[in-house]
Amino acid sequence: MPAPEPETPALILDRAALARNIAAMAAFAADRGLALRPHAKTHKSADIARLQIEAGAVGLCCAKLGEAEALAEQGVGDIHLTSPVVAPAALARLAALAGRIRLSAVVDHPDAAAALDDALQTPLDVLIDVDPGTRRTGVASAEAAVALARVIASGAKLRLAGVQFYCGSQQHIESFADRRAAIAEKTDYLRQVLAALAAAGFEMAHVTGGGTGSFAIDAELGVLTELQAGSYVFMDREYRDCELAGAPAFEPALFVDATVISANHPGMVTLDAGIKSFATDAGVPVVWAGAPRDSRYVFMGDEQGALLGDGLPPLGSRVRLIPPHCDPTVNLYDCYQMVDGDALTAWRVTARGRSA
Amino acid sequence: MPAPEPETPALILDRAALARNIAAMAAFAADRGLALRPHAKTHKSADIARLQIEAGAVGLCCAKLGEAEALAEQGVGDIHLTSPVVAPAALARLAALAGRIRLSAVVDHPDAAAALDDALQTPLDVLIDVDPGTRRTGVASAEAAVALARVIASGAKLRLAGVQFYCGSQQHIESFADRRAAIAEKTDYLRQVLAALAAAGFEMAHVTGGGTGSFAIDAELGVLTELQAGSYVFMDREYRDCELAGAPAFEPALFVDATVISANHPGMVTLDAGIKSFATDAGVPVVWAGAPRDSRYVFMGDEQGALLGDGLPPLGSRVRLIPPHCDPTVNLYDCYQMVDGDALTAWRVTARGRSA
Repeated sequence: MPAPEPETPALILDRAALARNIAAMAAFAADRGLALRPHAKTHKSADIARLQIEAGAVGLCCAKLGEAEALAEQGVGDIHLTSPVVAPAALARLAALAGRIRLSAVVDHPDAAAALDDALQTPLDVLIDVDPGTRRTGVASAEAAVALARVIASGAKLRLAGVQFYCGSQQHIESFADRRAAIAEKTDYLRQVLAALAAAGFEMAHVTGGGTGSFAIDAELGVLTELQAGSYVFMDREYRDCELAGAPAFEPALFVDATVISANHPGMVTLDAGIKSFATDAGVPVVWAGAPRDSRYVFMGDEQGALLGDGLPPLGSRVRLIPPHCDPTVNLYDCYQMVDGDALTAWRVTARGRSA
Repeated sequence: MPAPEPETPALILDRAALARNIAAMAAFAADRGLALRPHAKTHKSADIARLQIEAGAVGLCCAKLGEAEALAEQGVGDIHLTSPVVAPAALARLAALAGRIRLSAVVDHPDAAAALDDALQTPLDVLIDVDPGTRRTGVASAEAAVALARVIASGAKLRLAGVQFYCGSQQHIESFADRRAAIAEKTDYLRQVLAALAAAGFEMAHVTGGGTGSFAIDAELGVLTELQAGSYVFMDREYRDCELAGAPAFEPALFVDATVISANHPGMVTLDAGIKSFATDAGVPVVWAGAPRDSRYVFMGDEQGALLGDGLPPLGSRVRLIPPHCDPTVNLYDCYQMVDGDALTAWRVTARGRSA
């Protein structure tokens, strides 16, 4: 009897590869004496979060409060929230969640710190979000970090617990040497911020950040005490394009299966997976199996994509692809599907769509 | 008491504008003696489908079988499926759905027609999908159309019911004159295909296609008998960039509300809506309210975007934006939210994520 096949398009998880990736990063962090707090924005899955905690992670990161609520509801008990929360209704939810699990949050503005302090019913660990120059979130200078530290320290319920420093723009620099140089330069700035905080009486023992593109560099530079890497669990096309030199060798563990639904032109077939099946912010997927690996995918609207090349599979064939960017691709699916012996099993994408 | 505000990011529907858009297109089609079968790939909503049918639509289009199943389960009883279905498990589901509602399907290959005929338990209206040159789906020549018509006509359960012709690549040509010329050229080709089919004994009384960029041109050219336009219900930024000359004036009815969560740089604020809140295949959203309309949005990762410009709103403010491309943006949300007097109401995005 042939192995069962999920209907396409399907988000496919290779559990064995996932387990090896989780173990490799856990071993790396343990070996370097670093805490590992993987970012759940990648997988949005309580099942995968549990595997990471079982392997030694101290907890998870979430990008949004809704993600944290969804994972907490499924038993994840230690979450750091990596984006500032400012809206009154969201602050009330954050305060409620802080009463249920071990939660920490970030702030990047004195007004936001004061509003958070007002909203809380219980003490909360708060980290200063330091902007490495991305200008997305975070205080913009050492002086602003010190001023914010004073506001946090004066809060009735806020506990100044450390610094967050995430070099998002540098994670995907393809050359390892260039990426290392960029992260080293940013880390010099982080050292200045930490020195200014220490000089003002705020010695920060906890510095969290890093990603799959930088964790080995962060470990070598020795300033971060906790790693937030997320994508290593799956390894999308974007990170496979990066030279991770010296790091554990992560394997692709996440795929999208598609079917050839039209084949009326030489050198081209149409797949049933398009913009609704792959995030489009980071280029195109690449073929893993079922068609030549050098065939080229092109988006053809919401529901279709073309494969171009020689030796393409016929009408009705299945093709397995590696998504270009795992995090927002996962967000398009309700569940991960896995072939387990001769049965199909599924894991819910617990926090899918939880951006609020 | 102030009007309630959904937590952000939120997909916001203006029901009054939606109702006016639905009425305007219904009146246009009725006035021209054309059937209107709006494409549900835009809204994925049984509630909106019902409003369209009440306004005179003959039924709905769906891009995928899963969409059709989801809408059928909520009472939509007449659906045309615009993409070919070929996988055996999907053909079995299609056959089951054909037993429950008034369904029609497309084919673009003799093998697919034969497989569909085998899978069916009941007769099914089948349309020949004619490729206007997009090379996504559809037969590639008049000869292929005739050959396919013969296979369909010889099927035990297939009923040859017409032709589908969707000029997807032409819908967003911004100049009306250029778009009109392109659609006219494609329609000349369609006339040749229809003539070849008629010469072979297949007179096609039913020709379905068109979109929000072409429906007025299609009506003028007089070959299509049924319009599949979908985006007119919402009018996204992409269609607002197009000159719809002479057509009914559709209004923006779909928005994304976001909150300023970081404001540490002059001329820039960070919103809590990024790649997970807007589809990224068609450029960037534009501001509708809450910030100057000429401020510029830039994606800043999965969960954030920046607004750049002068006179930006302060930390904690709400901003309302028009999404760049409505269909895949809607697919990112579980529900539409509406302010109804002093209460918030929500409509489910019935077919969200139903790509299989």
